[in-house]
Amino acid sequence: MINIAVLGYGTVGSGVVEVIRTNQDIVNKRSGQDIKIKYVLDLREFPGDPVQEILVHDYNVILNDPEVDIVVEVMGGLNPAYNFVKSALEAGKSVCTSNKELVAAHGAELLAIAKEKNLNFLFEASVGGGIPIIRPLNQSLTADEITEITGILNGTTNYILSKMTDEGSDFDSVLKQAQELGYAERNPEADVEGYDACRKIAILTSLVLGKQVDYQDIYTEGITKITDAEIKYAKALGGSIKLLGMSKFVDGTVYSMVSPFIIGKDHPLATVNGVFNGIFINGNVLGDTMFYGSGAGKLPTASAVVSDVVDAVKHQGTNIMTIWDSEKVALGDMDTFNCRYFVRTKSKKAEVEAAFGTVSYVTVEGLDEVAFLTENMTEGDFNQKVKALDMIYRLRTAL
Amino acid sequence: MINIAVLGYGTVGSGVVEVIRTNQDIVNKRSGQDIKIKYVLDLREFPGDPVQEILVHDYNVILNDPEVDIVVEVMGGLNPAYNFVKSALEAGKSVCTSNKELVAAHGAELLAIAKEKNLNFLFEASVGGGIPIIRPLNQSLTADEITEITGILNGTTNYILSKMTDEGSDFDSVLKQAQELGYAERNPEADVEGYDACRKIAILTSLVLGKQVDYQDIYTEGITKITDAEIKYAKALGGSIKLLGMSKFVDGTVYSMVSPFIIGKDHPLATVNGVFNGIFINGNVLGDTMFYGSGAGKLPTASAVVSDVVDAVKHQGTNIMTIWDSEKVALGDMDTFNCRYFVRTKSKKAEVEAAFGTVSYVTVEGLDEVAFLTENMTEGDFNQKVKALDMIYRLRTAL
Repeated sequence: MINIAVLGYGTVGSGVVEVIRTNQDIVNKRSGQDIKIKYVLDLREFPGDPVQEILVHDYNVILNDPEVDIVVEVMGGLNPAYNFVKSALEAGKSVCTSNKELVAAHGAELLAIAKEKNLNFLFEASVGGGIPIIRPLNQSLTADEITEITGILNGTTNYILSKMTDEGSDFDSVLKQAQELGYAERNPEADVEGYDACRKIAILTSLVLGKQVDYQDIYTEGITKITDAEIKYAKALGGSIKLLGMSKFVDGTVYSMVSPFIIGKDHPLATVNGVFNGIFINGNVLGDTMFYGSGAGKLPTASAVVSDVVDAVKHQGTNIMTIWDSEKVALGDMDTFNCRYFVRTKSKKAEVEAAFGTVSYVTVEGLDEVAFLTENMTEGDFNQKVKALDMIYRLRTAL
Repeated sequence: MINIAVLGYGTVGSGVVEVIRTNQDIVNKRSGQDIKIKYVLDLREFPGDPVQEILVHDYNVILNDPEVDIVVEVMGGLNPAYNFVKSALEAGKSVCTSNKELVAAHGAELLAIAKEKNLNFLFEASVGGGIPIIRPLNQSLTADEITEITGILNGTTNYILSKMTDEGSDFDSVLKQAQELGYAERNPEADVEGYDACRKIAILTSLVLGKQVDYQDIYTEGITKITDAEIKYAKALGGSIKLLGMSKFVDGTVYSMVSPFIIGKDHPLATVNGVFNGIFINGNVLGDTMFYGSGAGKLPTASAVVSDVVDAVKHQGTNIMTIWDSEKVALGDMDTFNCRYFVRTKSKKAEVEAAFGTVSYVTVEGLDEVAFLTENMTEGDFNQKVKALDMIYRLRTAL
């Protein structure tokens, strides 16, 4: 019998309780033990909910109960999650978490404590919701030098961009609709400004490198400036706009960013629409691979958390090797990052050509302006050249 | 230091040697040990190839060398692979294999020996080439009741169907082209008749159920009868034809088959084209997920084999729990399998409606015949009703 405690009875926490209760037989069989939820921690009361019987308000009840083997942290945020998780590990309890802020900020430290104590700190649900990505990256893609990891890591922004593309609606009205449907938070900043995707690509990149990538260092640009015009140009270019969390590993330099990109229709991520997430990986011997699924939502996220619980039970007393040292990685300067840029400008074609030489023009009915695609060039070079133009907007592309 | 021996220096075997040599530092770091290829077994000589220095022709040299920790079996076929692998495990060596025939036929038995001996028998490369699927299924999708696992599991047939779709070419000429490019074997039967996909869906289904699914029991239909007409009808229906290995778990009944299907353009597998593979999984809490990548080829397959080697090194002395008992699963009768059928017939619409009631007709320019899509019905019901018609061909659909 393995006793677990769930910290937080919000969306994911109630999902974890539901998944374990619904699939109790399967979970027991696959972990080889009977798994019992002994406590749920929440400050609130839930009258009428059976969880009330195992609800506690004081974390010390859990921390000081030697019968609790595994702590499931699904509260989110850094405080008090960080202290709760750290003290749980120090008290000899393995931890499974869905908390991307916590993992991005303190992953290396918490993994080191788990290793020292012969425990496990697992965080499959922190990136890609229900999509298995942390464990495959850590345990399956081990024969390759990873050259790129690029993901559609935020369902809210992907839903908004998909809707704008399908229906020709503008950003604000689609955001409002997404909020009404519960796909976007009332304060949508973390999603639409790319902060959520930034934590996630920081975690993935740290795991690829085995070193610490600070999310604060990652260039992050959201989607709030994308208008119907950009959507139309993307279509005219035979592609679509996606908010990508991307890390490219080029000759020892790591470029890491969150940015909207125009991607071509043959890109493996092109068909990842709506609230779905997708993570594309290229390895030097594996070639291209892609993982697709529900990147958020109560039950898919809880499914990933419970898969961590099963893994923690299977590895009681053995630390699962995860290489993520606290040594910090210096990211490559965005000025040396290479891509093709799409530009809308009020300038004339002659000015564009004076600045950029040969470009590919793009036209969209009803838009009386010059728009073009540059050749492949560095961001520094691009920024220098574009100064000569009266630019309306520019987008990076992976065309 | 961990010594490994590679059995077979064909396409995959030479790939394994190349991957370990190319990515030696990465592989050592991720496994936490120095990995050395001590022997390569092959009956042939390879003059001029550095492998010659470690080449042996007698398996007993490997079997009797206590320094060999891990045996990599990449010869293919049942004999002598089965005896070699079994004796390696009995001699206390973990085994990593890419051999789908071996795993489909003897997986349960070899896993039991590995467990008893506290070793590992790993076979990531046996399904989906470089795509991580065996380990995710075994270790990540553990919180779910799997309701469906459906894959494009054979690159050769997917290449042929993609080419027929893109270029309007006929089966025979595309097959010839595929053979010239090395995408199809000189004897293509195992691919085009679905036998290869059949072994793979047998392995995946056995892992989902934790019990033995005999590949001989799986209904298997290939793509040799698909003509340009079917391709055109599939397009007219807004979909495409894919050879699917499919298992559906419906109310305790397991339907398992390999069959060409018409799938809609929104199906997650619709964009898996050319030699790529894709595996779609639905779980009762996870929802839909999909894994995509190179399903074959020297280096992608070798990448998966070497990831197993890394895992075996990390788990020296510990058996990785894999639930696959020898207890045999009785598959559901195809007569009770439910889907919508597409039918081409020489009969008249009145006869069609007399037999099937309401149907959806499909027309394609230049084809002067009746073609239609049935409602959802059981295969037994369909076979009964279609007897009244002069049928040209029928296809299962997932529309």
